[in-house]
Amino acid sequence: MSDRQTTIHELKERMAKFVHERDWEQFHTPKNLSMSISIEAAELMEHFQWLTVEQSKSLEPDALQDISEELADIVIYSLSLSNFLELDLADAILQKMEKNRRKYPKEKVKGKSHKYTYYKENDGDDQ
Amino acid sequence: MSDRQTTIHELKERMAKFVHERDWEQFHTPKNLSMSISIEAAELMEHFQWLTVEQSKSLEPDALQDISEELADIVIYSLSLSNFLELDLADAILQKMEKNRRKYPKEKVKGKSHKYTYYKENDGDDQ
Amino acid sequence: MSDRQTTIHELKERMAKFVHERDWEQFHTPKNLSMSISIEAAELMEHFQWLTVEQSKSLEPDALQDISEELADIVIYSLSLSNFLELDLADAILQKMEKNRRKYPKEKVKGKSHKYTYYKENDGDDQ
Amino acid sequence: MSDRQTTIHELKERMAKFVHERDWEQFHTPKNLSMSISIEAAELMEHFQWLTVEQSKSLEPDALQDISEELADIVIYSLSLSNFLELDLADAILQKMEKNRRKYPKEKVKGKSHKYTYYKENDGDDQ
Repeated sequence: MSDRQTTIHELKERMAKFVHERDWEQFHTPKNLSMSISIEAAELMEHFQWLTVEQSKSLEPDALQDISEELADIVIYSLSLSNFLELDLADAILQKMEKNRRKYPKEKVKGKSHKYTYYKENDGDDQ
Repeated sequence: MSDRQTTIHELKERMAKFVHERDWEQFHTPKNLSMSISIEAAELMEHFQWLTVEQSKSLEPDALQDISEELADIVIYSLSLSNFLELDLADAILQKMEKNRRKYPKEKVKGKSHKYTYYKENDGDDQ
Repeated sequence: MSDRQTTIHELKERMAKFVHERDWEQFHTPKNLSMSISIEAAELMEHFQWLTVEQSKSLEPDALQDISEELADIVIYSLSLSNFLELDLADAILQKMEKNRRKYPKEKVKGKSHKYTYYKENDGDDQ
Repeated sequence: MSDRQTTIHELKERMAKFVHERDWEQFHTPKNLSMSISIEAAELMEHFQWLTVEQSKSLEPDALQDISEELADIVIYSLSLSNFLELDLADAILQKMEKNRRKYPKEKVKGKSHKYTYYKENDGDDQ
């Protein structure tokens, strides 16, 4: 299996089954899952903590394996939260991407980190 | 479009195009993206900060819309990091789920939060 | 030594010495330290991840010891960042407390979590 | 007032009074406060998200003011958690610093980020 064949729905189903078989719905509440995502995000970040931005671009195979597991954990808990909230995650992503396209028009923000930050801080003013 | 039709690959492609059109590859480095995921995770958590675990289960439609956008942001940045690292994210998720299945055998951990925590703290000993 | 005798200045001095003796100023940059604080905050959170809000109030001595170490780490990195930025941290705290007193007048917000959340979401409107 | 004159105890007392006057002890539970610290840490991080490590060293006065407020928030919630848990925070910090001194002997780790990471990943083996 792979990115080309696997739908969000399929991943959500597998996660729902995993949680249900363990009777863990009682722990996988929105409040707890938001904490879990944040904790896994910090574990991912830990790999880059003392690297320069440049160094973070060339990683050893071992680090890359660890990082792929942390990234998987983040998305796994995001799938579980989508299940709990009965959200269509693909839909939410596509809608957010569309919103971002309007918010950061490519001709205006191309290659500009200053602009990017500027627009971020002026959310809503620039739409 | 929806969870049933959308593959991880398709979402990654859309994100790669969005980043490329803005010449933002220079900012979307692993170190920066790990920070972005963590920041979005905190914005998600903010919605649940002062709620009890129970209250977090019944959310107003407005809150639910905000939450779906935060969750989308988390996965969007995760897709971008997968692109940068040339990771097969679906594969990483499926492998991690398999690892978790072995780590938390359903007959052993069913409905037990204490056990769950216990096993978490004893990572590696229980495999 | 103890809370009653120890000034912020003294803790900052000890941390500056620790960093300087290891020639770690090069790693203790604001960007990196902001990541460190966030990572330690997640490690603190991990202790409460699967507990109810109520359960989090009565902790075992072992957990309490771990938690006090995580909390120490958070403040240690905050002291180091204050050193780098040459901030008077006590001053910043006292000013922020004063700002919060004006923002959340006690007669208006007393015992109200709804109000609390409400005021938080309406930052600036309520001053 | 300032870092030179202000003890941890004094800051804790002021925070306890602030919380008590608003009857907010019911919300300032360990689980919630750990989330608050993490959320504020992310808000701090947001200022450095798209900067290089170098850029993060020279900040505009406006950014510096915002950053000092975020840092204050982090320590404010840490004080509140110390109050709830009846921890002597200065003691916890001094003990953790002593532990770190043993863990990272200055002659061994001086100026070495690789070693630093290495030692971090080998917690416990190197004591």
